[in-house]
Amino acid sequence: MKNNKSGLDIDLGNRCSQIAYNWAQKTFSNRPPGGGNPLLLVEGAFSNIMDFKGVKIGMSSDGIGTKIELAERSGIYDTLGFDLVAMVADDLAANGLETVNFSNILDVDHLDADIVDRLMKGLHDAANFARIVITGGEIAELGERIGGYGANMHFNWGATGVGILPEGQPMIDGSRIAEGDTLLALKSRGFRSNGFSLLRRIMQDAFGEEWHKTAYSEEMTWGEALLAPSLIYSPLIAALQKKGINLKGIAHITGGGIGDNFARVLKVSRLGALLDNLFEPLPVMRKVQKLGQAPEEQAYRFWNMGNGMLLVAAPEDAEKIMQICAADNYQAQVCGIIRKRANIEIHTKGMFPRKIKFPIY
Amino acid sequence: MKNNKSGLDIDLGNRCSQIAYNWAQKTFSNRPPGGGNPLLLVEGAFSNIMDFKGVKIGMSSDGIGTKIELAERSGIYDTLGFDLVAMVADDLAANGLETVNFSNILDVDHLDADIVDRLMKGLHDAANFARIVITGGEIAELGERIGGYGANMHFNWGATGVGILPEGQPMIDGSRIAEGDTLLALKSRGFRSNGFSLLRRIMQDAFGEEWHKTAYSEEMTWGEALLAPSLIYSPLIAALQKKGINLKGIAHITGGGIGDNFARVLKVSRLGALLDNLFEPLPVMRKVQKLGQAPEEQAYRFWNMGNGMLLVAAPEDAEKIMQICAADNYQAQVCGIIRKRANIEIHTKGMFPRKIKFPIY
Repeated sequence: MKNNKSGLDIDLGNRCSQIAYNWAQKTFSNRPPGGGNPLLLVEGAFSNIMDFKGVKIGMSSDGIGTKIELAERSGIYDTLGFDLVAMVADDLAANGLETVNFSNILDVDHLDADIVDRLMKGLHDAANFARIVITGGEIAELGERIGGYGANMHFNWGATGVGILPEGQPMIDGSRIAEGDTLLALKSRGFRSNGFSLLRRIMQDAFGEEWHKTAYSEEMTWGEALLAPSLIYSPLIAALQKKGINLKGIAHITGGGIGDNFARVLKVSRLGALLDNLFEPLPVMRKVQKLGQAPEEQAYRFWNMGNGMLLVAAPEDAEKIMQICAADNYQAQVCGIIRKRANIEIHTKGMFPRKIKFPIY
Repeated sequence: MKNNKSGLDIDLGNRCSQIAYNWAQKTFSNRPPGGGNPLLLVEGAFSNIMDFKGVKIGMSSDGIGTKIELAERSGIYDTLGFDLVAMVADDLAANGLETVNFSNILDVDHLDADIVDRLMKGLHDAANFARIVITGGEIAELGERIGGYGANMHFNWGATGVGILPEGQPMIDGSRIAEGDTLLALKSRGFRSNGFSLLRRIMQDAFGEEWHKTAYSEEMTWGEALLAPSLIYSPLIAALQKKGINLKGIAHITGGGIGDNFARVLKVSRLGALLDNLFEPLPVMRKVQKLGQAPEEQAYRFWNMGNGMLLVAAPEDAEKIMQICAADNYQAQVCGIIRKRANIEIHTKGMFPRKIKFPIY
């Protein structure tokens, strides 16, 4: 599907990811058991978890995409580190891995030591929040290969995290999900690092080229409102595991929204879900959706709409999960239930509330 | 030093790397011993090796910089994977780590499935050569944030490798280097992924904007000659370790050349070296150096000049090392000796041979 509104062709993206995976898969036998071989999921597919003599380690890579343009527009550079850590660590957390080490690659057109300092300070702040050691980094000057907004340093930023499966914990691969299990949503604190192409399109149509300077509220510009840093869930997941909670499935809501990301979690059990009590979208999301007259399907596909992560657990664990979340300053609520019907039914809460059913493919 | 010829300000680059390291260092205590904490080198500095309950794992990130433009110019995409694996795995190998897992981030302006396929095929080929499992990958569409040559897909490509310290092997940190130790050079097979800004400058001055189409020889254009893929040394280092060779120091010759990269290896022992029998630069390097009238200092700073890796070992191991190299189709030769005088003296073999002394800082 060519989605002209966002500028991204999601089908072509999926095809290219599949191509990359197919080539990668032909390398999986390059390492013997215990020597870094990828482990099998129950259904026979490979996970991103490798076995090193019984120590189970995962690695995952991601970047923060075009959210960077918001920093270039607003001149605020010390919050992107939270987005970078969130994108990487929360993907690992979704498999039950606690991110412990982090290595980043910063591509720049030219170097500005002050901006690099602010970026790295933010990465440091985020790493301390998530108790991650930054063990590596690379800064590459690439001249005209890097573009961006305005005259200051342009850059793209990606990272790889290494996480461990806590001792005695099972992989979280969705295989233990059962009918009647409870779904809990973790509230987000803004747009994470997804759907920014669509966001920028809407902003530009509404307020013109210099849209980021437009007042969002009395305290804040639109640029600042959209730049709000991602909440990192990884330390919370580690705390839940440490306290003995049996997390059966976790979906990190990134590109593709609840539909895509939760469908992957449900794929193994072939069960479905009803989500009729999600958090409401944050005010900034409602405003953007209204400005762009974005249909509910699109909003819930490109943005997290207030729910940054979904957890699957036995009903009897729900209360304890919410207590641990509250103690750690995260907001959680029961948002639905696992059921037999093999689709994901969402009662949306955007500007145009309705019921949407996503297939489990 | 602003090096106008290459377009890169190496001092500013070093300052920014230092800034990044200083912030990273403040995260080193985020993990307890055995839980992913970085290990100390003998001199008290942190290494990139982390301890997971006795399993020693390192991670390292790098990209292939502007060599990518050569692929865009020549339309050959399936060799860059060797450069990417070489840049990452050979940095890990220089610490004695065998790279086992690999995760890559491909940033593109727009997607071209055929080009993605050829890139990933090359990465697969390189991973199989080096017995690495590709366990992760991310493709990000970043529109105008990515620039490049010509009308086809533009991209930047970076990766992170995870390596293990083979059981029973010590870290290779230069601490065991002693006066009288032998230096061996491993021959390279062309430009690796460094010094391409300077290279392109020279080519453009010599042959104009479409320089890559100029004949290099009867069989090859200049574009193809400069694109020659990097030789990956990582499997050779693993083989040497497996056969009981005590490697005391390894320098991967990347940006900064022998001077910078070997100086880091010698820093711990505070010894110096005489390198009077390096491999000669490859013919393509001589031609480029002559075209650009690049002084010997510059050539040996920006390019590997025929020597992609240096090994330090006891004199009695030299013969066995060369036998193992030959058996594995690598070319090695004794190129010098460790001595007390605390500098690196290189008898260069470029177009303007002379003796150059680099400080050990």
